[in-house]
Amino acid sequence: MWYHKLLHQQSRLQNLMKRGDIAHGLRLSGFKSLFPFSLHWCHTASKSVNCTWHQHEDHLELQYASTVMRFDYVWLRDHCRSASCYNSKTHQRSLDTASVDLCIKPKTIRLDESTLFFTWPDGHVTRYDLDWLVKNSYEGQKQEVIQPRVLWNAKLYQDAQLPSVDFQGFLETKEGLKKFLQNFLLYGIAFVENVPPTQEHTEKLARRVSLIRETIYGRMWYFTSDFSRGDTAYTKLALDRHTDTTYFQEPCGIQVFHCLKHEGTGGRTLLVDGFYAAQQVLQRAPEEFDLLSQVPLKHEYIENVGQCHNHMIGVGPILNIYPWNKELYLIRYNNYDRAVINTVPYDVVRRWYAAHRTLTTELRRPENELWVKLKPGKVLFIDNWRVLHGRESFTGYRQLCGCYLTRDDVLNTARILGLHA
Amino acid sequence: MWYHKLLHQQSRLQNLMKRGDIAHGLRLSGFKSLFPFSLHWCHTASKSVNCTWHQHEDHLELQYASTVMRFDYVWLRDHCRSASCYNSKTHQRSLDTASVDLCIKPKTIRLDESTLFFTWPDGHVTRYDLDWLVKNSYEGQKQEVIQPRVLWNAKLYQDAQLPSVDFQGFLETKEGLKKFLQNFLLYGIAFVENVPPTQEHTEKLARRVSLIRETIYGRMWYFTSDFSRGDTAYTKLALDRHTDTTYFQEPCGIQVFHCLKHEGTGGRTLLVDGFYAAQQVLQRAPEEFDLLSQVPLKHEYIENVGQCHNHMIGVGPILNIYPWNKELYLIRYNNYDRAVINTVPYDVVRRWYAAHRTLTTELRRPENELWVKLKPGKVLFIDNWRVLHGRESFTGYRQLCGCYLTRDDVLNTARILGLHA
Repeated sequence: MWYHKLLHQQSRLQNLMKRGDIAHGLRLSGFKSLFPFSLHWCHTASKSVNCTWHQHEDHLELQYASTVMRFDYVWLRDHCRSASCYNSKTHQRSLDTASVDLCIKPKTIRLDESTLFFTWPDGHVTRYDLDWLVKNSYEGQKQEVIQPRVLWNAKLYQDAQLPSVDFQGFLETKEGLKKFLQNFLLYGIAFVENVPPTQEHTEKLARRVSLIRETIYGRMWYFTSDFSRGDTAYTKLALDRHTDTTYFQEPCGIQVFHCLKHEGTGGRTLLVDGFYAAQQVLQRAPEEFDLLSQVPLKHEYIENVGQCHNHMIGVGPILNIYPWNKELYLIRYNNYDRAVINTVPYDVVRRWYAAHRTLTTELRRPENELWVKLKPGKVLFIDNWRVLHGRESFTGYRQLCGCYLTRDDVLNTARILGLHA
Repeated sequence: MWYHKLLHQQSRLQNLMKRGDIAHGLRLSGFKSLFPFSLHWCHTASKSVNCTWHQHEDHLELQYASTVMRFDYVWLRDHCRSASCYNSKTHQRSLDTASVDLCIKPKTIRLDESTLFFTWPDGHVTRYDLDWLVKNSYEGQKQEVIQPRVLWNAKLYQDAQLPSVDFQGFLETKEGLKKFLQNFLLYGIAFVENVPPTQEHTEKLARRVSLIRETIYGRMWYFTSDFSRGDTAYTKLALDRHTDTTYFQEPCGIQVFHCLKHEGTGGRTLLVDGFYAAQQVLQRAPEEFDLLSQVPLKHEYIENVGQCHNHMIGVGPILNIYPWNKELYLIRYNNYDRAVINTVPYDVVRRWYAAHRTLTTELRRPENELWVKLKPGKVLFIDNWRVLHGRESFTGYRQLCGCYLTRDDVLNTARILGLHA
């Protein structure tokens, strides 16, 4: 179960975090053991005796160290990394998969040190490093989480005492950006401090992380409570916890918020870790977790205000999981924009409402609510695929600016910096 | 089955198309009968006697005209459109769904003309128009396709003799844009002619349709075969049929191509309707269609060329369908960028390769290949969620520019123009 793996990581990571430097913490050798098979990466030739295999009629069974793996023969031919099958410059497959006989079997298999050699009927030779096979096999993959995370409620987040990141260090050093992103990937929220309170500086900040995603709200958005758009966000009313742009087929990945000015009271920002709440549902009512991950919903945005005419529709379940390891990667929760439910029959609808209630109850527990006051100079990044946000009602003049980033682009930056994303 | 509905529509639409004006064709009364329940939209009070209902313990059974519908009671309360439950200005739900008793039942139900009135235990009254209920019920929804399409092979496309759209009309008139979009939505490709062969005019054209999606390739991309990026596209080599950016979590929705210059030979563009091919698979081997819609794949882009460092990973099946009506909405097919398959065990992998072969065979049938020569002035829009593209190898100097659009934004434009999208 993904949350067991996460829980295990969580306690380890939190201890590391407390030492102050996340990036440093993750470099500690102890962190490696959080990831199954990382030990194999330093496997030496002398251990190759641990490898045995058996050629079944329709697959290869391979035991290496403590892992039993089964490989389809077409798979073994299709993933060949030889120069004629794989372009190592573009990292693209050159092999025409359709040219592979679906009944193919290797003529011979031999092991040399830690490399397996397959000779195919036409004489072509494919070689696989044993560690590569472990890392890329189904059996290896299903034991890994795609993205390590630390789930939190208000106390857990506060206890983590995450060090803040300074604007200059963030902008000017690779370490500053990396520390910020590591933080963000683990917790789903992160702050940058001492940012000049202008839209230009906020944009510069966002661009440091990735491309800005232009939407119907513009590239950078800027708003006051002027009701200039057909959405409750453009009022002074309280907003209950929700994720944004659930009415996009792919909701925006990251939201950037910067309060440039507030002359009045109220308006604190509410943050709730949707994955923490979902984990509670999974533990207490797994069949409800499943239902929330199976029933596709529509969310809708219809706007006809002034010159703004929009009609967006997004489709997908509330909880989105990777089917092979049940890891949650996206929560889509917005009761304001949830459209008519008509994708499942009435009896499933009935059970869905019960499951939705269970999730809502978890999301609303006061102990899960992290309240923060956004101030000029303090920029908040929210993982909109994980952390719900809301706000108190407020009085007075309030200026907010921000933008959306596409999740792919942010993960891209993180990977380039060597982070696990 | 979605393709039966599509096939039925297809023959009707093709006849209408032949008359020359698509938009006109769709306005013909005959088109209405393609959509189940459109007749109900003109239902009059005198027919209300056709409505009967029965209050079951856990749901309402409603028969109206020829449709039997079943509604969960919480659903009926949750979708209330009264002023206190629904903000008709922002089109957002105001009702706190969590405040509804999960065991709620209406105290009374009565019909007045074509409106059903539900009185709830607390006295609140919810009213539903019968036609609204039919249109928004599960029973109504599952008989509809979300997006009408005309599937094609080369002959079917050529026989349709789609009229081209002129740059000026496209830019300056709502009708020009609407005609273009209707065409594009039905066929997945569309051309605009007489465009000045510059990047600026191509951008202007794209902006007329929707926002441009900035990616790692820039906002507008521009390329020659200079191998400036770590991708085979930046060579003179032939490219087999594929969809683009399969390594984004949401592949780009629409691709815009404009060949600005070509002094040489070859380089024709190949277009294949992926949905037509998928339909053949569904008809001949439905279990393989299912498998292709169930096995999640990773696609990957790893680039380390010059200043370009990128590592993108997208996850999803080849065929993406709406589960409630099995309608295909996205094909993700790129054998170059398909990453290691490790999300399912070896025996499923084996069956997956067979299914992939069946699909590939369909995609490669010569009769399914539409070859076009892009020339300066002729801009091609491709639905990258449906139509695969490729190219012949070429000689000489070739300049191409273009961009990606997000599907949500294009559908938004279409809906605002009154199109079914």
